[in-house]
Amino acid sequence: MRGEVLEAMLPYLTEHYGNPSATYGLASEAANAIAIAREQAADLIGAKPHEIFFTSGGTEADNWALRGALLLVETSMRTAEGKSKRHIISSRIEHQAILRCLKRLEEEGLAEVTLLPVDREGLVSPADLKDALRPDTILVSIMAANNEIGSMEPLAKLADLTHEAGALFHTDAVQAFGQIPLDVKKLGVDLLSASAHKIYGPKGTGMLYVRETIPFRSMIQGGAQEKNRRAGTENVPGIVGFGAACVCAKKTLPDRMRREGALRNLLIKRAEEIYPAARLNGPRPKGVGLAHRSSLLEQGTRDEEGPGKMPDWRLPGNVNICFPGKSAELLLIMLEAEGILASAGSACASGSLDPSHVLSAIGLSEDDNRASLRFSLGEETSREEIEKTADALERILK
Amino acid sequence: MRGEVLEAMLPYLTEHYGNPSATYGLASEAANAIAIAREQAADLIGAKPHEIFFTSGGTEADNWALRGALLLVETSMRTAEGKSKRHIISSRIEHQAILRCLKRLEEEGLAEVTLLPVDREGLVSPADLKDALRPDTILVSIMAANNEIGSMEPLAKLADLTHEAGALFHTDAVQAFGQIPLDVKKLGVDLLSASAHKIYGPKGTGMLYVRETIPFRSMIQGGAQEKNRRAGTENVPGIVGFGAACVCAKKTLPDRMRREGALRNLLIKRAEEIYPAARLNGPRPKGVGLAHRSSLLEQGTRDEEGPGKMPDWRLPGNVNICFPGKSAELLLIMLEAEGILASAGSACASGSLDPSHVLSAIGLSEDDNRASLRFSLGEETSREEIEKTADALERILK
Ligand SMILES: Cc1ncc(COP(=O)(O)O)c(C=O)c1O
Ligand SMILES: Cc1ncc(COP(=O)(O)O)c(C=O)c1O
Repeated sequence: MRGEVLEAMLPYLTEHYGNPSATYGLASEAANAIAIAREQAADLIGAKPHEIFFTSGGTEADNWALRGALLLVETSMRTAEGKSKRHIISSRIEHQAILRCLKRLEEEGLAEVTLLPVDREGLVSPADLKDALRPDTILVSIMAANNEIGSMEPLAKLADLTHEAGALFHTDAVQAFGQIPLDVKKLGVDLLSASAHKIYGPKGTGMLYVRETIPFRSMIQGGAQEKNRRAGTENVPGIVGFGAACVCAKKTLPDRMRREGALRNLLIKRAEEIYPAARLNGPRPKGVGLAHRSSLLEQGTRDEEGPGKMPDWRLPGNVNICFPGKSAELLLIMLEAEGILASAGSACASGSLDPSHVLSAIGLSEDDNRASLRFSLGEETSREEIEKTADALERILK
Repeated sequence: MRGEVLEAMLPYLTEHYGNPSATYGLASEAANAIAIAREQAADLIGAKPHEIFFTSGGTEADNWALRGALLLVETSMRTAEGKSKRHIISSRIEHQAILRCLKRLEEEGLAEVTLLPVDREGLVSPADLKDALRPDTILVSIMAANNEIGSMEPLAKLADLTHEAGALFHTDAVQAFGQIPLDVKKLGVDLLSASAHKIYGPKGTGMLYVRETIPFRSMIQGGAQEKNRRAGTENVPGIVGFGAACVCAKKTLPDRMRREGALRNLLIKRAEEIYPAARLNGPRPKGVGLAHRSSLLEQGTRDEEGPGKMPDWRLPGNVNICFPGKSAELLLIMLEAEGILASAGSACASGSLDPSHVLSAIGLSEDDNRASLRFSLGEETSREEIEKTADALERILK
């Protein structure tokens, strides 16, 4: 967590202990602080404050987006044939917070789900989405950027197609929020999930953006918090910390992208020099080794949008490399012994090292899947650390 | 929040920032801390650590208890006639986290709900429960203690009857947890909700106790956190703070009960002297004014159980008094001007001062409802403050 974030939170862990929903004066300190955090979070994605609803994290926000969309069915959204709209389209590389919830919704008989494939770089094809959309599709949920291989999806294009078909567009932006420019209005996103701990904010706080025109219903019922849409005494310090983290994220965004992107490219370059058989998983940044061959580029969608005209389709802080013939699990242990913490699979999915569903979806064999390592770069990552990591990799791989 | 709680949390807001679900070593600090907090929370209610599941608060825990019980239906629990078990029994004085969720479940067509009445002291009658139980009842949810009028329900008796009818027993113990002795095994409770901020812990953290033999399913799906039952990156500092608050609560419980109970009795006595028409809402503590006339006492249930042989059926820290002919809203404002913060209605239900559903349920007219004030006593409340409050009340009422 950032120092500024903790500093912003501390008063709400000590003297400002009022319950924001109480009626007495002590409470208004807390209520005001939440209102400010709401503005700060909205500001980072071009939303209005009243379109932001705080949750206990990205997972709750993702679940709520899916369940909330299905609840709209009961009110008004039916197809011309009178069928309930309960078809949901998502992708094979979503986070478990989407995939497991979708599985549950199918089990409960509430939804029918189509999971779109992705290309070798992890990109969803607009043509595939077009084919999958049905009159009873109520929601399309495609992540803004993938947590394992860093691929950014062509949101504007996908949202457009979704709206043409009369459905809502949700994006799990947990990995993109505060890491790349995002503007819900320009992208045409109706629902967006984010999480504080990915932007140096506190764990256990997140949000769902809901476009103001959508009569979205709550997933958790009780008191009137969050304008009746998310009940429960607010995690005031968490929300205040999230707001502070948003302010910092906005201020530092261009610099961070540039710095992290350059370090990412350096690490990829060094890894490919050290181990010529190495293969980058996910989109290749421009100018690093082989030419960029994004299928989406060929479709021309990249220049049309690209959140904020990105130099490439890969998150600045993400490196994911396959070292064919090596065991990622073993590499992880040896790297950790040198003080370098990397990961394999999804860090959010328990301690087990099952092969990654994302790497399978981009076509890796099970062997290559188990030979792939992820390095996450952050604001504090230095050039020296990248060089040290590359040197360690070189020793270990030899 | 207690000083000890903040102290316990701080390291997890700063140096121990690992994600407890990650595979590398840094993560185990956080994972260990959560394991310890789980033991601490379990210890306060006689549960086993693996029966505790952390949530974002009491509201989420309550919602989960209700939805989770209904999810059991799909697996095995059907009546002899093959009908789905989807009948839920609760009471008219539950918190909105139960009542609003039940209303939603009815709207979604998932449950049929019976709300039991309460007597003038806010107690549910076991005879009423017996009458309401049906072969298709899957869950009975009765709060351990009411947040507005402090009445403690005869849980052991109610749980017994529930089990005889083949249903599960849940209790919303948000107000009782850490305030009075509670033992899930002795009480025969299957599910129990609690919230950290009611015991000087952090806001935005709570838990659901689930008896180990119940194959309860998750309400929020995603990563494998909380043994696959509650997905989402854990609020590590919140959980650690909750654990620390449980330790303090256990240590100070007998003293707090005695002290707060005595101050509560003093405030009731003084209010009744100052304003002879005043009427206590909720159970009358023994030895304060009129004789205790709990209907449950007459049924003999009080001596059989009474969480830890309570001297009375009222929470030690709760005073709720009707001043017939006066406006609670006005009294609140005048008290606040003297630095005394009281409340009317439920502090958790938005800023509005709608008449309380709890006071209606115990038979108050709308006028008396709007003339009723609640005072909450805490660990730091002193005798001087109680005297000062009574003096202020006297001046204001005159
Ligand atoms: C009896 C009761 N149940 C549930 C809740 C909700 O708990 P939380 O505010 O932690 O969501 C409260 C809150 O005051 C309560 O008093
Ligand atoms: C893409 C993505 N979605 C959702 C989540 C879940 O967010 P949270 O951990 O805040 O529940 C994560 C967490 O890592 C993620 O990477």
